[in-house]
Amino acid sequence: MLPGIGVFGTGAVAKVLVPFLREKGFPVEAIWGVTLPEAENTAKELKIPFFTNKIDDVLLKKNVSLVFIVCAPNLHAQISVKALGIGKHVVCDKPAGLCQAEALKMVRAAQYYPTLISIINHSLRFLPAFSHMRKSILEGYLGNPGELTLIDVRVQMGSLLGDTYNWLCDDTMGGGTLTLVGSHVIDLVSYLSGQKVVKVHGVLRTFVEETPKINGIRKVTAPDFCTFQLQMDKGLLVTATLNNHLPGLCFNQEIYVYSKKGYLVVRGGDLHGKLHKTISKNVDEGKRQDKEEVIYVDIEDLSCASSVIPKPYIKGLCKMISALKEAFLPVKEQMDWVKEPVRAAATFEDGQRVQATMEALRQSNEDGRWISVQLLTETPDPNPALSAAVRRTAISLQ
Amino acid sequence: MLPGIGVFGTGAVAKVLVPFLREKGFPVEAIWGVTLPEAENTAKELKIPFFTNKIDDVLLKKNVSLVFIVCAPNLHAQISVKALGIGKHVVCDKPAGLCQAEALKMVRAAQYYPTLISIINHSLRFLPAFSHMRKSILEGYLGNPGELTLIDVRVQMGSLLGDTYNWLCDDTMGGGTLTLVGSHVIDLVSYLSGQKVVKVHGVLRTFVEETPKINGIRKVTAPDFCTFQLQMDKGLLVTATLNNHLPGLCFNQEIYVYSKKGYLVVRGGDLHGKLHKTISKNVDEGKRQDKEEVIYVDIEDLSCASSVIPKPYIKGLCKMISALKEAFLPVKEQMDWVKEPVRAAATFEDGQRVQATMEALRQSNEDGRWISVQLLTETPDPNPALSAAVRRTAISLQ
Repeated sequence: MLPGIGVFGTGAVAKVLVPFLREKGFPVEAIWGVTLPEAENTAKELKIPFFTNKIDDVLLKKNVSLVFIVCAPNLHAQISVKALGIGKHVVCDKPAGLCQAEALKMVRAAQYYPTLISIINHSLRFLPAFSHMRKSILEGYLGNPGELTLIDVRVQMGSLLGDTYNWLCDDTMGGGTLTLVGSHVIDLVSYLSGQKVVKVHGVLRTFVEETPKINGIRKVTAPDFCTFQLQMDKGLLVTATLNNHLPGLCFNQEIYVYSKKGYLVVRGGDLHGKLHKTISKNVDEGKRQDKEEVIYVDIEDLSCASSVIPKPYIKGLCKMISALKEAFLPVKEQMDWVKEPVRAAATFEDGQRVQATMEALRQSNEDGRWISVQLLTETPDPNPALSAAVRRTAISLQ
Repeated sequence: MLPGIGVFGTGAVAKVLVPFLREKGFPVEAIWGVTLPEAENTAKELKIPFFTNKIDDVLLKKNVSLVFIVCAPNLHAQISVKALGIGKHVVCDKPAGLCQAEALKMVRAAQYYPTLISIINHSLRFLPAFSHMRKSILEGYLGNPGELTLIDVRVQMGSLLGDTYNWLCDDTMGGGTLTLVGSHVIDLVSYLSGQKVVKVHGVLRTFVEETPKINGIRKVTAPDFCTFQLQMDKGLLVTATLNNHLPGLCFNQEIYVYSKKGYLVVRGGDLHGKLHKTISKNVDEGKRQDKEEVIYVDIEDLSCASSVIPKPYIKGLCKMISALKEAFLPVKEQMDWVKEPVRAAATFEDGQRVQATMEALRQSNEDGRWISVQLLTETPDPNPALSAAVRRTAISLQ
């Protein structure tokens, strides 16, 4: 039986998400917006029976068993933790909170309620081209999967900014290409390679600080360009260039995975590969005739499209919702599910790793040097001076 | 009147160069090779009347007025300096010597003989697509030419290594993708933008240390992968990824130049551009219909092709030789020339700047941090201890 859905957020993702959920048979029961008019308008537009601007109103609804958190990142951790505490399954959009400390809270909550679903929406994992790429790597298309040499990522797209000043313009609120596109890339390379990021180098820039529509006293601080290198734990190097300077709604995404044997590449939704040939008699002739091997071509059309969100992300999200359906359908109880169909999904731990990597990248951009990725295991003390005083008092009382 | 040519080197470049020179009417008088058999074989193959393995034998020939130095980089500085001293025009392949100290010697020699031609073979400057790109930038296609934001370069190609172990395998001898491809990119971005490199970050890797044909005790040390960022002096950022891991003889080169107004891109030999539109009533409709503007399409076929050297480099070289012809033709005296047709060529100073940038990039790769580019102005003291002793003696004798 499919669980009732509560949606947090009224933006572009929510508007794509709700029709998808309905198409797969999920009843969408409630929507939350920052303001009541926003919630009301979106509820009307999407024909959702309940709307509110109070978080608890959604979480406490009996017919809501699974929440999709697709609002601004500053609320991701708060809503996720609260939802799990109330016993609701959670799918949270990237990033996992605003910083690693928030991500750690989410991880702790997920560990505390292991029977509940807790997924970060890194939807590219579910894009068929990447599933096939991972399968090809594991099956040895490029030789020993542990001997990948290089992943080269290029994403070129238009501006991420909307028509008004909001969190998308603000670096500290989770806006910008590192958080919104880079987080997907960081997660994806770990997913594809099975390797973890050890240290990083990054350059972040905000080239466009105002637009024809956003030109008040507040400048855009969210980066619109980012290039980074990741050193992975088994020797793989990742290099990525993410760019929001294409005019219009263009979107080009290419991800090359290399080994000494050849490469695999996902362009858009298609997977190709090419291997070095063993030496033939007529080398030049042989080399020239080689074409890329077609491994997977995405011919399936999307039933729901978005004019704003790039196709691979939409399609990945759509596939993830199908997987969620398969996780719930075999089970009769409303809250029960099986893990297998959503095994590929990014966990909150994955989300924390991505956060740790992004924090190291921001530090690297500040310091102009390579930075080791530090995974937080203890909640940072919000007031070290107070804690020290408490300890001193405790000692003096002994 | 066109000058007689002496060619230093018997490799792939020499074999493309000589037919080009003849086609343009330059008499090729002499060829030098590391060994006499190599020189003899190439002389026979290319029908050159004189061959030798002694540098002076070419330089002292009366009918040689212009030398092309296309041998291994360890001899570039030595031959260039000697040739200018004997009064011969010089076109020297990149890099300008093995290090900045060598490049500085070349610069000093070029400054000492200003009536002689001294050019570094950064042939991409002469590729029509890049000439047109520079012209478009200067004419304000992207707005104020001083307000470029980003140049994004990607070069993907096959291995640079041959069938036997030689200097191409050796980092210290001038082999590898930074020296052979990166030097072109570094020169080109300065040429296109008119800006100088201030500081750099780079990552160099040699992923393939042996090949089916090069698998002795000596490993390949020349980098086959390189990603770097250059901070230019008027705010432009450059990011480049150079990769020698494509199987076969593939070659993809894309150079995007961005400003806040849009971008220009050279793919292969073609130039396209796209600008942000002013806001129209039906934004989505308007944005979607936009296509890249075609600014220059390279339809001209090469009379001479190479199976090894990528087409843009060959074509650039061919155009540079045409420019050289125009520099000599209007003048009656064999040694006289006019500057205008070769004004775009890279000077030895440009070559030194590229060397300084590459040295900073190697240092950055070692140190894992951004490094400032230091332009050498004094020849480094080969024996500081001896110099100090001489100074002490001089003082004690006073």
